[in-house]
Amino acid sequence: MKRISKTILADEIVVTIRSVVGSEPVALHEPTFSGNELIYLKECLDSTFVSSVGKYVDRFENEIAEFTGSKHAIAVVNGTAALHIALKLAGVMPGDEVLVPTLTFVATANAVTYCGAIPHFVDSEEMTLGIDVEKLKTYLSINTKQRSGQCINISTGRVIRALVPMHTFGHPSDLESLQLVADKYHLALIEDAAESLGSYYRDRHTGTFGLFGTLSFNGNKTITTGGGGVILTDNEQLARHAKHLTTTAKIPHAWEYNHDEIGYNYRMPNINAALGCAQLEQLPLKLKGKRSLYQAYKVAFASISGVRLVNEPPYCRSNFWLQTILLDSEYANQRDHILKTTNEVGLMTRPVWGLLHQSPAFIKCETMDCTCAENLSRRLINIPSSKQLI
Amino acid sequence: MKRISKTILADEIVVTIRSVVGSEPVALHEPTFSGNELIYLKECLDSTFVSSVGKYVDRFENEIAEFTGSKHAIAVVNGTAALHIALKLAGVMPGDEVLVPTLTFVATANAVTYCGAIPHFVDSEEMTLGIDVEKLKTYLSINTKQRSGQCINISTGRVIRALVPMHTFGHPSDLESLQLVADKYHLALIEDAAESLGSYYRDRHTGTFGLFGTLSFNGNKTITTGGGGVILTDNEQLARHAKHLTTTAKIPHAWEYNHDEIGYNYRMPNINAALGCAQLEQLPLKLKGKRSLYQAYKVAFASISGVRLVNEPPYCRSNFWLQTILLDSEYANQRDHILKTTNEVGLMTRPVWGLLHQSPAFIKCETMDCTCAENLSRRLINIPSSKQLI
Repeated sequence: MKRISKTILADEIVVTIRSVVGSEPVALHEPTFSGNELIYLKECLDSTFVSSVGKYVDRFENEIAEFTGSKHAIAVVNGTAALHIALKLAGVMPGDEVLVPTLTFVATANAVTYCGAIPHFVDSEEMTLGIDVEKLKTYLSINTKQRSGQCINISTGRVIRALVPMHTFGHPSDLESLQLVADKYHLALIEDAAESLGSYYRDRHTGTFGLFGTLSFNGNKTITTGGGGVILTDNEQLARHAKHLTTTAKIPHAWEYNHDEIGYNYRMPNINAALGCAQLEQLPLKLKGKRSLYQAYKVAFASISGVRLVNEPPYCRSNFWLQTILLDSEYANQRDHILKTTNEVGLMTRPVWGLLHQSPAFIKCETMDCTCAENLSRRLINIPSSKQLI
Repeated sequence: MKRISKTILADEIVVTIRSVVGSEPVALHEPTFSGNELIYLKECLDSTFVSSVGKYVDRFENEIAEFTGSKHAIAVVNGTAALHIALKLAGVMPGDEVLVPTLTFVATANAVTYCGAIPHFVDSEEMTLGIDVEKLKTYLSINTKQRSGQCINISTGRVIRALVPMHTFGHPSDLESLQLVADKYHLALIEDAAESLGSYYRDRHTGTFGLFGTLSFNGNKTITTGGGGVILTDNEQLARHAKHLTTTAKIPHAWEYNHDEIGYNYRMPNINAALGCAQLEQLPLKLKGKRSLYQAYKVAFASISGVRLVNEPPYCRSNFWLQTILLDSEYANQRDHILKTTNEVGLMTRPVWGLLHQSPAFIKCETMDCTCAENLSRRLINIPSSKQLI
């Protein structure tokens, strides 16, 4: 096969993206507010309930629970806070280790450290861009032992308490296999579904397989509350505890202020939930738009060599939150030139996050060999993904 | 002096409050949105920047810095987050102790625990409802020793790293004396000014004396952003670090995502800041209204025995965030009856927060004798405080 020069591949990618999104400058992902946003914000102001109590935050929780099929949803200030509380309630304690992919946004590992625990990084694979389950199985069989129903890291002696897959760019990880591993090794399964609202593994919404799942409604997500997140769980007792911990652990009373444990000021404000309720009404349309954009990119990218568009994994329905191209390995060294060229002409693109096992913040943490993630990180590029581009 | 019966005192208080606020049910503190709130929210939606970046969050920071006279202001999701980062950047480390009043909202102590540190509770006094500085001086002289320029708790051997006064209900603590104590004992002074936006010690705004000060814009505060807080500091380097830590410690780059330390998702969303900018325009008027309400209560309460209205401390100008009555000691046992009676007739009142040194969450922490705070907590009652009541 003829090798494509750096300049030609970058230019071809520009032309291909422009054939779908047009020639104007475009952001990576922009929200749209075309429904009842302003009406609900006005209602919220008129009610005076803009803060930690109000009808919109209750409604948002109910509607997210209904949409995802989770029995309970607890609304919080952002996805990081959701993950922090989920890990804490899953029993993650200071000195524990928690398995997280190295290929994820930094929040996944940060939340582990907020519990005083240590991230233990695992590799990803190319089909789902999520945790490589086969590699993880082999790794755990060699590097851990069971003691009193706990999974012990042989080299550190620490308990490995939980497993946190993240559904990269909205593509579901291999949840059934991950659940089997979690069960076998006595690990709490917590899904970081920050990017995957509207993504399904078979017919079940991501974030509803684990003991907890967590969602994000940051400004760059499929729907936004400005800043916001949700904790999903089917366990009623854990849901009650999550609500308690995220509302400063105040003991309910008409006028007294007492708290029975160390809590957090993590409640999603009602004004942010008002925005969320309006956004949620448009979610089916947004998901449809994002799928159409994928299909348009698919046709466009079919005709160029050296790069492929990332598809949803088998048996899954992705939300296609961020559209992604994967360079063939031989063109990995062209990534930076492609990023520079596309950004310079106003097409916002970006590489995947810096790998966490190589980050100065986590360099001393435990890690397995992460060759595949390292390889992927040199080849992945997110391209403009707003549903309104189509 | 003739002792006033339980029923009579409670009824007199109801009549007195009603003589000021009228006979309709009233909340303890309700926000008002009578300015540009909806206009700015609409502008924010139209800009599509509702999340962690946008013109309103920058503007809000600038305007808060200007209003308070602080060189820098960093906007975050709430006052608890502000305090967490301030403590961390003041050098509070796991295993340290931090001096906080037992008479404060639980967030002051919670933030200490988020650093892995241990709250060490100190007593308050009746004039300011803040830390009793004379008692603290005596306590520190007996119970601590200096070692390598650090203050060591003799009984635990731990470093006492910081001192966190809280300006109760908006009344400034004795800041000049606290600064002297902090300097003498090598303690970082961090002001929890969550309740005292618009309160001054002499001519200087609260929150600007310490290495850091922190504000809150929760729904019940003088102005609100739904949920929100600010970190104040005059130190440019610390301000930059605070902004870095509260924005996930991302290294600035047009498209790459790398982080150089463990950070936090604490940035105030632009949509909340839009609300805050509109609220801030009305702050002088709100402060004026709250002072007028205090003056009306002062006249009304002058004529009943057994209770006095809490005034601003000498040399201070309070924002009168929460109006407060203090029962004479002999009527402390009537507090619960007064709370029940007032709330039952629709006048929302509440006692001060449960004292933290007695809370199950902190029962194992260090504490000095807190007799005065215990005495105050049996006698303090907050009464309806919205500025629109006058």
